[in-house]
Amino acid sequence: MNPGEIRHAMARVGPRLRRTPVIELPRGAFGIDATLVLKLECMQHTGSFKPRGALNRMLANPLPAAGVIAASGGNHGAAVAWAARALGVDAEVFVPASSSAAKIERIRAYGARTHVGGAAYADAFDAMQKRALETGALVVHAYDQPETVAGQGTLALEFEAQAFGLDSVVIACGGGGLLGGVAAWFESRVRVVAVEPRDCPTLFQARATGAPTDVSAGGIAADSLGARRIGTLAFTIAARHVADCVLVDDAAIRTAQRALWEECRVAAEPGGATALAALMAGAWRPGAGERVGVLVCGANLDPASLA
Amino acid sequence: MNPGEIRHAMARVGPRLRRTPVIELPRGAFGIDATLVLKLECMQHTGSFKPRGALNRMLANPLPAAGVIAASGGNHGAAVAWAARALGVDAEVFVPASSSAAKIERIRAYGARTHVGGAAYADAFDAMQKRALETGALVVHAYDQPETVAGQGTLALEFEAQAFGLDSVVIACGGGGLLGGVAAWFESRVRVVAVEPRDCPTLFQARATGAPTDVSAGGIAADSLGARRIGTLAFTIAARHVADCVLVDDAAIRTAQRALWEECRVAAEPGGATALAALMAGAWRPGAGERVGVLVCGANLDPASLA
Repeated sequence: MNPGEIRHAMARVGPRLRRTPVIELPRGAFGIDATLVLKLECMQHTGSFKPRGALNRMLANPLPAAGVIAASGGNHGAAVAWAARALGVDAEVFVPASSSAAKIERIRAYGARTHVGGAAYADAFDAMQKRALETGALVVHAYDQPETVAGQGTLALEFEAQAFGLDSVVIACGGGGLLGGVAAWFESRVRVVAVEPRDCPTLFQARATGAPTDVSAGGIAADSLGARRIGTLAFTIAARHVADCVLVDDAAIRTAQRALWEECRVAAEPGGATALAALMAGAWRPGAGERVGVLVCGANLDPASLA
Repeated sequence: MNPGEIRHAMARVGPRLRRTPVIELPRGAFGIDATLVLKLECMQHTGSFKPRGALNRMLANPLPAAGVIAASGGNHGAAVAWAARALGVDAEVFVPASSSAAKIERIRAYGARTHVGGAAYADAFDAMQKRALETGALVVHAYDQPETVAGQGTLALEFEAQAFGLDSVVIACGGGGLLGGVAAWFESRVRVVAVEPRDCPTLFQARATGAPTDVSAGGIAADSLGARRIGTLAFTIAARHVADCVLVDDAAIRTAQRALWEECRVAAEPGGATALAALMAGAWRPGAGERVGVLVCGANLDPASLA
């Protein structure tokens, strides 16, 4: 994975996606001694960054008559369903029972045939793989496919064009598709910091043991960050280009989610507030006067949960 | 009121405010045959555009020992309380009983002495005026003061720098502070369209009768657009520089509010969704291929109301 592949992905997906906005907050915002630039990718189509990777996978490959198929905690499924509708092909999506009712409803609303089953994302993935062998549909992986990772990397290309001179970029990590794409774009020119919920430490655990390994996948962000294992692509990219990997607990995620709403009227789901949580909780501390990019990567939540 | 005054206001207030983001949506978004550029002023400090005018009034005048005083449906009161705290002076705010509990709580949280009473904004205004004569505090008018109008106009200056080539800008109107400031900035270079709830038609009625006149002030947007009478400044500016004034009903406002959430994950209060409502309901129709700016001007709502 290199910046050239990400530029190619941008040429494919850019015309069909939103250039999501950024907002700059001066030192002191959220009690953090750094300038923050929030990338509001939660305003992307379907409410998360996932259409970047899903569309790139679908535009870079011939689409079989059986259409596309995917497993997802929810956001990727919505993106695949949305992209399939936009391209006029069928979609079939497998989600675990842990996905929220709102996310499942959204996937159905975009017109995908939707199957709910299994406790976690990994279970839905197994069911999807079996079905894909039967139908011949194109598998659109949620994170561990080159086209997916390159597609998510377009977020970094876009962000860098909007916010010059970032010292660091802080990103939530689940399966690592977004992290891998962003780290592959910046190639260590900007410090990339991965943040994981303490209850889904896929990259943290893989770095500790030296290889991707299964972890539990729980906590309040599990419906977006609840992969059981870091993708091999993301793990490999992270080994070269992710400087830090830190953990936050659910209370810190909730605090950041509330603060985004209270201070900026930005609605973020728990996974979308996880990067900011690391800064607010002090799990990762920027240097004095740094300019820090923070990805707010999803907003598929029940708005009543912000009250 | 002229662009020069607005540029002066920007020099005063700009360093203390956020440059709120914009998001561009291609033709077809929300079913509208025009390119839309949403100005997300709902992410301003305190959740609405109101700090622009309040801060400008306070920075352009000596601040007496008694501090500042204001009447407000809620958003202006929060802005005055926030600005007073930022500048280290006392604030006293009068709100009508029609203001939402969330708004009143927010004004208190910023540290202002808060009085709730009277049915509508105009009643709170009368009580505020009486009190101001006793204390000698600086009155910060919600809309009908040159510094307020010039401050709100900074939104248009900023928006034009972010979104070149707008053909029209669509704006909700209550007392007209924002409308007046925006129209004074654009001076008919860009078509300015005012939108009012059918139940608070302050400008519409004034244009029909030829002078500002009292109207009823009801409906779901009354806690932000519920002035009883258009400001004289706004009325005068509008006569020269506001091309159209249209009405929308509460159902259209609610539909636009839901659509902003569903399509963009933007949380807007009813008054903040009123401009978009005019486009979605066809109350005002842009020309083919137009580039239309839409102000999303407030998000002080109970998020549960979006569910």
